[in-house]
Amino acid sequence: MEVRVILVEPKNEENIGAVARVTKNFGFSALYLVNPPNIGKKAFSVASHASDVLSACKIVNSVEEAIADSAIVAGTTSKPGISVNRHLRMPFFSPQELKKKVEDKRGILSLLFGREDVGLLNEELMRCDIVVCIPTNLGYPVMNLSHAVAVVLYELRDVRADSGELPLACLEDKERLFAHISMFLDEIEYKDYKKEKTALMLRRILGRAELTAREVQTLRGILTKAERKMGEDEP
Amino acid sequence: MEVRVILVEPKNEENIGAVARVTKNFGFSALYLVNPPNIGKKAFSVASHASDVLSACKIVNSVEEAIADSAIVAGTTSKPGISVNRHLRMPFFSPQELKKKVEDKRGILSLLFGREDVGLLNEELMRCDIVVCIPTNLGYPVMNLSHAVAVVLYELRDVRADSGELPLACLEDKERLFAHISMFLDEIEYKDYKKEKTALMLRRILGRAELTAREVQTLRGILTKAERKMGEDEP
Repeated sequence: MEVRVILVEPKNEENIGAVARVTKNFGFSALYLVNPPNIGKKAFSVASHASDVLSACKIVNSVEEAIADSAIVAGTTSKPGISVNRHLRMPFFSPQELKKKVEDKRGILSLLFGREDVGLLNEELMRCDIVVCIPTNLGYPVMNLSHAVAVVLYELRDVRADSGELPLACLEDKERLFAHISMFLDEIEYKDYKKEKTALMLRRILGRAELTAREVQTLRGILTKAERKMGEDEP
Repeated sequence: MEVRVILVEPKNEENIGAVARVTKNFGFSALYLVNPPNIGKKAFSVASHASDVLSACKIVNSVEEAIADSAIVAGTTSKPGISVNRHLRMPFFSPQELKKKVEDKRGILSLLFGREDVGLLNEELMRCDIVVCIPTNLGYPVMNLSHAVAVVLYELRDVRADSGELPLACLEDKERLFAHISMFLDEIEYKDYKKEKTALMLRRILGRAELTAREVQTLRGILTKAERKMGEDEP
Protein backbone atom coordinates (compact mmCIF):
# COMPACT_ATOMS: atom_id res chain seq x y z
CA MET A 1 0.00 0.00 0.00
CA GLU A 2 0.91 3.63 -0.31
CA VAL A 3 1.29 5.00 3.20
CA ARG A 4 0.09 8.56 3.87
CA VAL A 5 0.83 10.27 7.18
CA ILE A 6 -1.87 12.76 8.14
CA LEU A 7 -1.45 15.07 11.12
CA VAL A 8 -4.77 16.52 12.23
CA GLU A 9 -4.42 20.06 13.57
CA PRO A 10 -0.93 19.72 15.02
CA LYS A 11 -0.03 22.70 17.18
CA ASN A 12 3.71 22.43 17.42
CA GLU A 13 5.88 23.02 14.36
CA GLU A 14 8.81 21.06 15.86
CA ASN A 15 6.57 18.01 15.97
CA ILE A 16 5.75 18.49 12.29
CA GLY A 17 9.46 18.64 11.45
CA ALA A 18 10.15 15.56 13.58
CA VAL A 19 7.37 13.67 11.79
CA ALA A 20 8.80 14.65 8.38
CA ARG A 21 12.18 13.29 9.47
CA VAL A 22 10.90 9.92 10.71
CA THR A 23 8.65 9.61 7.64
CA LYS A 24 11.76 9.77 5.49
CA ASN A 25 13.75 7.53 7.90
CA PHE A 26 11.34 4.70 7.20
CA GLY A 27 11.23 5.30 3.46
CA PHE A 28 7.90 7.11 3.15
CA SER A 29 7.22 10.58 1.80
CA ALA A 30 3.50 11.46 1.74
CA LEU A 31 2.74 13.92 4.54
CA TYR A 32 -0.60 15.74 4.86
CA LEU A 33 -1.32 18.44 7.42
CA VAL A 34 -4.86 19.42 8.37
CA ASN A 35 -4.94 23.07 9.52
CA PRO A 36 -1.33 23.21 10.73
CA PRO A 37 0.34 26.23 12.34
CA ASN A 38 2.80 28.27 10.31
CA ILE A 39 5.71 26.08 9.28
CA GLY A 40 8.91 28.00 9.74
CA LYS A 41 12.59 27.63 10.47
CA LYS A 42 12.12 25.53 13.59
CA ALA A 43 10.20 22.84 11.73
CA PHE A 44 12.84 22.68 9.00
CA SER A 45 15.63 22.56 11.55
CA VAL A 46 14.04 19.54 13.29
CA ALA A 47 13.25 17.89 9.93
CA SER A 48 17.00 17.98 9.25
CA HIS A 49 17.68 16.08 6.01
CA ALA A 50 13.95 15.50 5.43
CA SER A 51 13.28 19.07 4.30
CA ASP A 52 12.17 17.58 0.97
CA VAL A 53 9.34 15.70 2.68
CA LEU A 54 8.38 18.78 4.67
CA SER A 55 8.46 21.08 1.62
CA ALA A 56 6.29 18.66 -0.34
CA CYS A 57 3.68 18.22 2.41
CA LYS A 58 0.06 18.92 1.47
CA ILE A 59 -1.83 21.40 3.59
CA VAL A 60 -5.59 20.84 3.65
CA ASN A 61 -8.56 22.28 5.52
CA SER A 62 -10.33 19.12 6.57
CA VAL A 63 -9.81 15.47 7.37
CA GLU A 64 -12.23 14.65 4.54
CA GLU A 65 -9.92 16.32 2.04
CA ALA A 66 -6.88 14.49 3.43
CA ILE A 67 -8.44 11.01 3.28
CA ALA A 68 -10.54 11.49 0.11
CA ASP A 69 -8.86 8.89 -2.12
CA SER A 70 -7.87 6.39 0.59
CA ALA A 71 -8.50 2.67 0.53
CA ILE A 72 -8.05 2.28 4.29
CA VAL A 73 -8.22 4.99 6.95
CA ALA A 74 -6.54 4.08 10.23
CA GLY A 75 -6.91 6.41 13.22
CA THR A 76 -4.53 6.34 16.14
CA THR A 77 -5.47 6.73 19.76
CA SER A 78 -3.74 6.33 23.10
CA LYS A 79 -7.02 5.30 24.71
CA PRO A 80 -7.99 1.81 23.65
CA GLY A 81 -11.62 0.80 23.89
CA ILE A 82 -12.61 -1.01 27.05
CA SER A 83 -16.03 -2.31 26.19
CA VAL A 84 -16.97 -4.33 23.13
CA ASN A 85 -20.31 -2.65 23.43
CA ARG A 86 -18.86 0.71 22.45
CA HIS A 87 -17.70 0.59 18.87
CA LEU A 88 -15.83 3.87 18.65
CA ARG A 89 -12.47 2.48 19.78
CA MET A 90 -13.23 -1.20 19.56
CA PRO A 91 -11.83 -3.53 18.44
CA PHE A 92 -8.48 -1.80 18.26
CA PHE A 93 -5.32 -2.98 16.53
CA SER A 94 -1.68 -2.82 17.50
CA PRO A 95 0.70 -1.35 14.89
CA GLN A 96 1.87 -4.92 14.23
CA GLU A 97 -1.68 -6.11 13.60
CA LEU A 98 -2.26 -3.15 11.29
CA LYS A 99 0.78 -4.21 9.30
CA LYS A 100 -0.53 -7.75 8.93
CA LYS A 101 -3.89 -6.44 7.74
CA VAL A 102 -2.50 -4.17 5.06
CA GLU A 103 0.62 -5.86 3.74
CA ASP A 104 -1.08 -7.73 0.90
CA LYS A 105 -3.46 -4.92 -0.07
CA ARG A 106 -3.21 -2.19 -2.65
CA GLY A 107 -4.31 1.46 -2.47
CA ILE A 108 -3.69 4.39 -0.13
CA LEU A 109 -3.39 3.69 3.58
CA SER A 110 -4.14 6.93 5.44
CA LEU A 111 -2.78 7.13 8.97
CA LEU A 112 -4.50 9.78 11.08
CA PHE A 113 -2.63 11.22 14.06
CA GLY A 114 -4.53 13.64 16.29
CA ARG A 115 -3.75 16.84 18.15
CA GLU A 116 -0.98 16.90 20.76
CA ASP A 117 -3.45 17.56 23.58
CA VAL A 118 -6.77 15.90 22.75
CA GLY A 119 -5.88 13.51 19.93
CA LEU A 120 -8.53 12.73 17.33
CA LEU A 121 -12.08 13.85 18.00
CA ASN A 122 -14.79 11.22 18.24
CA GLU A 123 -16.28 12.24 14.89
CA GLU A 124 -12.83 11.84 13.30
CA LEU A 125 -12.39 8.39 14.84
CA MET A 126 -15.83 7.48 13.52
CA ARG A 127 -14.62 8.11 9.98
CA CYS A 128 -11.82 5.55 10.41
CA ASP A 129 -11.96 1.98 9.16
CA ILE A 130 -9.47 0.80 11.71
CA VAL A 131 -8.45 2.11 15.13
CA VAL A 132 -4.80 1.67 16.06
CA CYS A 133 -3.50 1.84 19.59
CA ILE A 134 0.19 1.61 20.47
CA PRO A 135 0.68 -0.70 23.45
CA THR A 136 2.01 1.67 26.10
CA ASN A 137 2.11 1.67 29.86
CA LEU A 138 -1.12 2.47 31.66
CA GLY A 139 0.81 4.77 33.99
CA TYR A 140 1.48 7.18 31.13
CA PRO A 141 -0.01 6.07 27.83
CA VAL A 142 0.05 9.38 25.94
CA MET A 143 3.04 9.51 23.60
CA ASN A 144 4.63 12.49 21.95
CA LEU A 145 3.08 12.94 18.49
CA SER A 146 6.24 12.24 16.52
CA HIS A 147 7.07 9.21 18.69
CA ALA A 148 3.68 7.70 17.89
CA VAL A 149 4.33 8.26 14.18
CA ALA A 150 7.81 6.74 14.59
CA VAL A 151 6.48 3.52 16.12
CA VAL A 152 3.67 3.05 13.57
CA LEU A 153 5.96 3.74 10.58
CA TYR A 154 8.64 1.48 12.07
CA GLU A 155 6.12 -1.38 11.96
CA LEU A 156 4.96 -0.44 8.46
CA ARG A 157 8.48 0.07 7.08
CA ASP A 158 8.27 -2.89 4.69
CA VAL A 159 4.84 -1.94 3.35
CA ARG A 160 5.49 -0.51 -0.08
CA ALA A 161 3.30 1.16 -2.66
CA ASP A 162 3.67 -1.66 -5.14
CA SER A 163 3.64 -4.62 -2.78
CA GLY A 164 -0.04 -5.48 -2.53
CA GLU A 165 -2.20 -7.62 -4.76
CA LEU A 166 -5.73 -6.84 -3.74
CA PRO A 167 -7.25 -3.58 -5.04
CA LEU A 168 -9.58 -2.21 -2.38
CA ALA A 169 -12.71 -0.12 -2.68
CA CYS A 170 -12.05 3.60 -2.56
CA LEU A 171 -13.37 5.76 0.24
CA GLU A 172 -16.11 7.34 -1.88
CA ASP A 173 -17.58 3.93 -2.70
CA LYS A 174 -17.47 2.91 0.92
CA GLU A 175 -19.02 6.16 2.10
CA ARG A 176 -21.87 5.60 -0.35
CA LEU A 177 -22.32 2.14 1.15
CA PHE A 178 -22.34 3.52 4.70
CA ALA A 179 -24.88 6.20 3.74
CA HIS A 180 -26.94 3.47 2.14
CA ILE A 181 -26.78 1.38 5.31
CA SER A 182 -27.83 4.37 7.39
CA MET A 183 -30.79 4.99 5.08
CA PHE A 184 -31.64 1.31 5.22
CA LEU A 185 -31.73 1.37 9.02
CA ASP A 186 -34.26 4.22 8.74
CA GLU A 187 -36.29 2.31 6.23
CA ILE A 188 -36.56 -0.75 8.43
CA GLU A 189 -37.53 1.60 11.31
CA TYR A 190 -34.54 0.62 13.36
CA LYS A 191 -34.84 2.21 16.79
CA ASP A 192 -33.35 5.70 16.81
CA TYR A 193 -31.46 5.34 20.07
CA LYS A 194 -29.57 2.31 18.76
CA LYS A 195 -29.10 3.52 15.20
CA GLU A 196 -25.90 5.49 15.49
CA LYS A 197 -24.18 2.81 17.54
CA THR A 198 -25.13 0.06 15.12
CA ALA A 199 -24.06 2.12 12.11
CA LEU A 200 -20.67 2.64 13.74
CA MET A 201 -20.40 -1.05 14.50
CA LEU A 202 -21.11 -1.89 10.85
CA ARG A 203 -18.53 0.67 9.76
CA ARG A 204 -15.95 -0.98 12.00
CA ILE A 205 -16.78 -4.47 10.78
CA LEU A 206 -16.71 -3.48 7.11
CA GLY A 207 -13.64 -1.33 7.69
CA ARG A 208 -11.72 -4.28 9.10
CA ALA A 209 -12.97 -6.46 6.29
CA GLU A 210 -11.17 -4.25 3.73
CA LEU A 211 -13.82 -4.51 1.07
CA THR A 212 -13.00 -4.66 -2.60
CA ALA A 213 -14.91 -2.39 -5.01
CA ARG A 214 -16.87 -5.40 -6.19
CA GLU A 215 -17.89 -6.38 -2.68
CA VAL A 216 -19.14 -2.86 -1.98
CA GLN A 217 -21.22 -3.04 -5.14
CA THR A 218 -22.66 -6.42 -4.14
CA LEU A 219 -23.55 -5.25 -0.65
CA ARG A 220 -25.32 -2.20 -2.04
CA GLY A 221 -27.12 -4.47 -4.48
CA ILE A 222 -28.42 -6.56 -1.58
CA LEU A 223 -29.66 -3.45 0.20
CA THR A 224 -31.38 -2.21 -2.96
CA LYS A 225 -33.07 -5.55 -3.51
CA ALA A 226 -34.29 -5.60 0.07
CA GLU A 227 -35.58 -2.04 -0.32
CA ARG A 228 -37.51 -2.98 -3.43
CA LYS A 229 -38.99 -5.97 -1.67
CA MET A 230 -40.04 -3.78 1.25
CA GLY A 231 -41.61 -1.31 -1.21
CA GLU A 232 -43.67 -4.08 -2.76
CA ASP A 233 -44.97 -5.14 0.63
CA GLU A 234 -46.18 -1.67 1.45
CA PRO A 235 -49.95 -1.40 1.48
CA MET B 1 15.80 -7.88 32.46
CA GLU B 2 16.01 -4.43 33.93
CA VAL B 3 16.25 -1.99 31.03
CA ARG B 4 18.51 1.05 31.44
CA VAL B 5 18.49 3.85 28.88
CA ILE B 6 21.89 5.55 28.60
CA LEU B 7 22.34 8.70 26.53
CA VAL B 8 26.00 9.32 25.76
CA GLU B 9 26.82 13.02 25.62
CA PRO B 10 23.47 14.24 24.31
CA LYS B 11 23.64 17.88 23.25
CA ASN B 12 20.00 18.88 23.14
CA GLU B 13 17.98 19.10 26.32
CA GLU B 14 14.67 18.71 24.46
CA ASN B 15 15.86 15.31 23.27
CA ILE B 16 16.61 14.33 26.87
CA GLY B 17 13.09 15.35 27.90
CA ALA B 18 11.59 13.45 24.95
CA VAL B 19 13.58 10.34 25.90
CA ALA B 20 12.33 10.60 29.52
CA ARG B 21 8.75 10.74 28.23
CA VAL B 22 9.00 7.72 25.94
CA THR B 23 10.88 5.78 28.63
CA LYS B 24 7.87 6.20 30.88
CA ASN B 25 5.42 5.57 28.00
CA PHE B 26 6.82 2.06 27.65
CA GLY B 27 6.91 1.40 31.38
CA PHE B 28 10.61 1.90 32.06
CA SER B 29 12.26 4.38 34.41
CA ALA B 30 16.06 4.03 34.54
CA LEU B 31 17.67 6.89 32.62
CA TYR B 32 21.43 7.59 32.73
CA LEU B 33 23.07 10.59 31.11
CA VAL B 34 26.78 10.69 30.32
CA ASN B 35 28.03 14.30 30.38
CA PRO B 36 24.70 15.91 29.46
CA PRO B 37 24.12 19.65 28.97
CA ASN B 38 22.31 21.61 31.67
CA ILE B 39 18.82 20.19 32.09
CA GLY B 40 16.38 23.05 32.43
CA LYS B 41 12.81 24.09 31.82
CA LYS B 42 12.78 23.02 28.17
CA ALA B 43 13.66 19.43 28.98
CA PHE B 44 10.98 19.23 31.66
CA SER B 45 8.42 20.78 29.33
CA VAL B 46 9.09 18.13 26.67
CA ALA B 47 9.18 15.35 29.29
CA SER B 48 5.61 16.37 30.16
CA HIS B 49 4.21 13.85 32.68
CA ALA B 50 7.54 12.02 32.84
CA SER B 51 9.21 14.67 35.00
CA ASP B 52 9.65 11.95 37.64
CA VAL B 53 11.85 9.92 35.27
CA LEU B 54 13.81 13.03 34.31
CA SER B 55 14.28 14.15 37.93
CA ALA B 56 15.50 10.69 38.92
CA CYS B 57 17.98 10.35 36.04
CA LYS B 58 21.59 9.58 36.96
CA ILE B 59 24.26 11.89 35.62
CA VAL B 60 27.66 10.26 35.22
CA ASN B 61 31.03 11.22 33.75
CA SER B 62 31.78 8.18 31.67
CA VAL B 63 30.22 5.30 29.79
CA GLU B 64 32.12 2.92 32.11
CA GLU B 65 30.30 4.35 35.11
CA ALA B 66 26.93 4.08 33.38
CA ILE B 67 27.33 0.44 32.36
CA ALA B 68 29.32 -0.77 35.42
CA ASP B 69 26.81 -3.28 36.80
CA SER B 70 25.26 -4.37 33.49
CA ALA B 71 24.71 -7.93 32.35
CA ILE B 72 24.35 -6.97 28.69
CA VAL B 73 25.48 -3.76 26.99
CA ALA B 74 23.77 -3.02 23.68
CA GLY B 75 24.99 -0.11 21.56
CA THR B 76 22.85 1.47 18.88
CA THR B 77 24.05 2.67 15.51
CA SER B 78 22.46 3.87 12.31
CA LYS B 79 25.34 2.43 10.32
CA PRO B 80 25.16 -1.34 10.18
CA GLY B 81 28.30 -3.30 9.46
CA ILE B 82 28.84 -4.26 5.86
CA SER B 83 31.67 -6.74 6.09
CA VAL B 84 31.79 -9.79 8.34
CA ASN B 85 35.50 -9.24 8.40
CA ARG B 86 35.10 -6.07 10.47
CA HIS B 87 33.77 -6.94 13.88
CA LEU B 88 32.98 -3.47 15.20
CA ARG B 89 29.42 -3.30 13.85
CA MET B 90 29.00 -6.92 12.89
CA PRO B 91 26.90 -8.92 13.28
CA PHE B 92 24.22 -6.40 14.14
CA PHE B 93 20.78 -7.04 15.57
CA SER B 94 17.40 -5.49 14.87
CA PRO B 95 15.47 -4.24 17.93
CA GLN B 96 13.23 -7.29 17.50
CA GLU B 97 16.20 -9.65 17.55
CA LEU B 98 17.54 -7.89 20.63
CA LYS B 99 14.23 -8.53 22.35
CA LYS B 100 14.37 -12.23 21.53
CA LYS B 101 17.91 -12.46 22.90
CA VAL B 102 17.15 -10.83 26.23
CA GLU B 103 13.61 -11.81 27.10
CA ASP B 104 14.50 -14.89 29.14
CA LYS B 105 17.56 -13.40 30.82
CA ARG B 106 18.04 -11.67 34.13
CA GLY B 107 20.20 -8.66 35.03
CA ILE B 108 20.62 -5.12 33.77
CA LEU B 109 20.32 -4.47 30.03
CA SER B 110 22.12 -1.22 29.23
CA LEU B 111 21.06 0.48 26.01
CA LEU B 112 23.62 2.99 24.75
CA PHE B 113 22.43 5.79 22.47
CA GLY B 114 25.08 8.07 21.03
CA ARG B 115 25.43 11.78 20.31
CA GLU B 116 22.95 13.49 17.98
CA ASP B 117 25.65 14.21 15.40
CA VAL B 118 28.24 11.44 15.50
CA GLY B 119 26.52 8.67 17.47
CA LEU B 120 28.67 6.34 19.54
CA LEU B 121 32.44 6.48 19.09
CA ASN B 122 34.21 3.35 17.90
CA GLU B 123 35.76 2.77 21.32
CA GLU B 124 32.29 2.96 22.87
CA LEU B 125 30.89 0.48 20.35
CA MET B 126 33.82 -1.80 21.16
CA ARG B 127 32.66 -1.99 24.77
CA CYS B 128 29.24 -3.28 23.71
CA ASP B 129 28.22 -6.93 23.77
CA ILE B 130 25.61 -6.40 21.10
CA VAL B 131 25.23 -3.86 18.32
CA VAL B 132 21.66 -2.84 17.49
CA CYS B 133 20.66 -1.19 14.25
CA ILE B 134 17.13 0.02 13.53
CA PRO B 135 16.11 -0.98 10.01
CA THR B 136 15.70 2.39 8.31
CA ASN B 137 15.78 3.60 4.76
CA LEU B 138 19.19 3.88 3.13
CA GLY B 139 18.18 7.28 1.74
CA TYR B 140 18.14 8.75 5.23
CA PRO B 141 19.05 6.26 7.94
CA VAL B 142 19.91 8.67 10.77
CA MET B 143 17.01 8.96 13.18
CA ASN B 144 16.34 11.62 15.76
CA LEU B 145 17.77 10.46 19.10
CA SER B 146 14.44 10.19 20.91
CA HIS B 147 12.85 8.40 17.94
CA ALA B 148 15.56 5.74 18.05
CA VAL B 149 14.92 5.30 21.79
CA ALA B 150 11.16 5.12 21.10
CA VAL B 151 11.52 2.30 18.57
CA VAL B 152 13.91 0.22 20.69
CA LEU B 153 11.81 0.61 23.86
CA TYR B 154 8.65 -0.15 21.87
CA GLU B 155 10.15 -3.51 20.96
CA LEU B 156 11.36 -4.12 24.52
CA ARG B 157 8.11 -3.02 26.18
CA ASP B 158 7.29 -6.49 27.50
CA VAL B 159 10.75 -7.11 28.90
CA ARG B 160 10.43 -6.69 32.64
CA ALA B 161 12.89 -6.64 35.51
CA ASP B 162 11.56 -9.85 37.02
CA SER B 163 10.79 -11.78 33.85
CA GLY B 164 14.05 -13.63 33.16
CA GLU B 165 15.32 -16.92 34.50
CA LEU B 166 18.98 -16.96 33.63
CA PRO B 167 21.35 -14.89 35.81
CA LEU B 168 24.13 -13.54 33.62
CA ALA B 169 27.74 -12.73 34.39
CA CYS B 170 28.28 -9.14 35.48
CA LEU B 171 30.34 -6.74 33.44
CA GLU B 172 33.32 -6.83 35.81
CA ASP B 173 33.62 -10.61 35.45
CA LYS B 174 33.40 -10.37 31.69
CA GLU B 175 35.97 -7.57 31.53
CA ARG B 176 38.34 -9.73 33.55
CA LEU B 177 37.79 -12.51 31.02
CA PHE B 178 38.43 -10.17 28.09
CA ALA B 179 41.62 -8.87 29.73
CA HIS B 180 42.65 -12.47 30.29
CA ILE B 181 42.01 -13.30 26.64
CA SER B 182 44.05 -10.31 25.55
CA MET B 183 46.92 -11.41 27.80
CA PHE B 184 46.60 -14.93 26.47
CA LEU B 185 46.91 -13.71 22.88
CA ASP B 186 50.19 -12.04 23.91
CA GLU B 187 51.37 -15.20 25.60
CA ILE B 188 50.79 -17.32 22.54
CA GLU B 189 52.58 -14.65 20.50
CA TYR B 190 49.56 -13.92 18.39
CA LYS B 191 50.51 -11.55 15.62
CA ASP B 192 50.20 -7.93 16.76
CA TYR B 193 48.50 -6.65 13.63
CA LYS B 194 45.68 -9.18 14.01
CA LYS B 195 45.40 -9.04 17.80
CA GLU B 196 43.00 -6.17 18.28
CA LYS B 197 40.64 -7.39 15.57
CA THR B 198 40.56 -10.91 16.96
CA ALA B 199 40.00 -9.65 20.52
CA LEU B 200 37.02 -7.62 19.28
CA MET B 201 35.66 -10.61 17.41
CA LEU B 202 35.89 -12.72 20.58
CA ARG B 203 34.18 -9.95 22.54
CA ARG B 204 31.32 -9.93 20.02
CA ILE B 205 30.99 -13.71 20.06
CA LEU B 206 31.03 -13.95 23.85
CA GLY B 207 28.79 -10.87 24.13
CA ARG B 208 26.14 -12.49 21.96
CA ALA B 209 26.49 -15.72 23.89
CA GLU B 210 25.33 -13.95 27.08
CA LEU B 211 27.63 -15.84 29.40
CA THR B 212 26.62 -16.86 32.89
CA ALA B 213 28.99 -16.20 35.79
CA ARG B 214 29.84 -19.88 35.91
CA GLU B 215 30.70 -19.99 32.21
CA VAL B 216 33.02 -17.00 32.60
CA GLN B 217 34.77 -18.81 35.43
CA THR B 218 35.13 -21.98 33.37
CA LEU B 219 36.53 -20.09 30.37
CA ARG B 220 39.09 -18.37 32.56
CA GLY B 221 39.95 -21.74 34.09
CA ILE B 222 40.69 -23.11 30.63
CA LEU B 223 42.94 -20.15 29.85
CA THR B 224 44.78 -20.57 33.15
CA LYS B 225 45.31 -24.28 32.54
CA ALA B 226 46.66 -23.57 29.08
CA GLU B 227 48.97 -20.91 30.48
CA ARG B 228 50.32 -23.34 33.08
CA LYS B 229 50.90 -25.93 30.39
CA MET B 230 52.75 -23.39 28.25
CA GLY B 231 54.85 -22.46 31.29
CA GLU B 232 55.87 -26.09 31.76
CA ASP B 233 56.94 -26.38 28.16
CA GLU B 234 59.26 -23.42 28.42
CA PRO B 235 62.89 -24.39 28.37
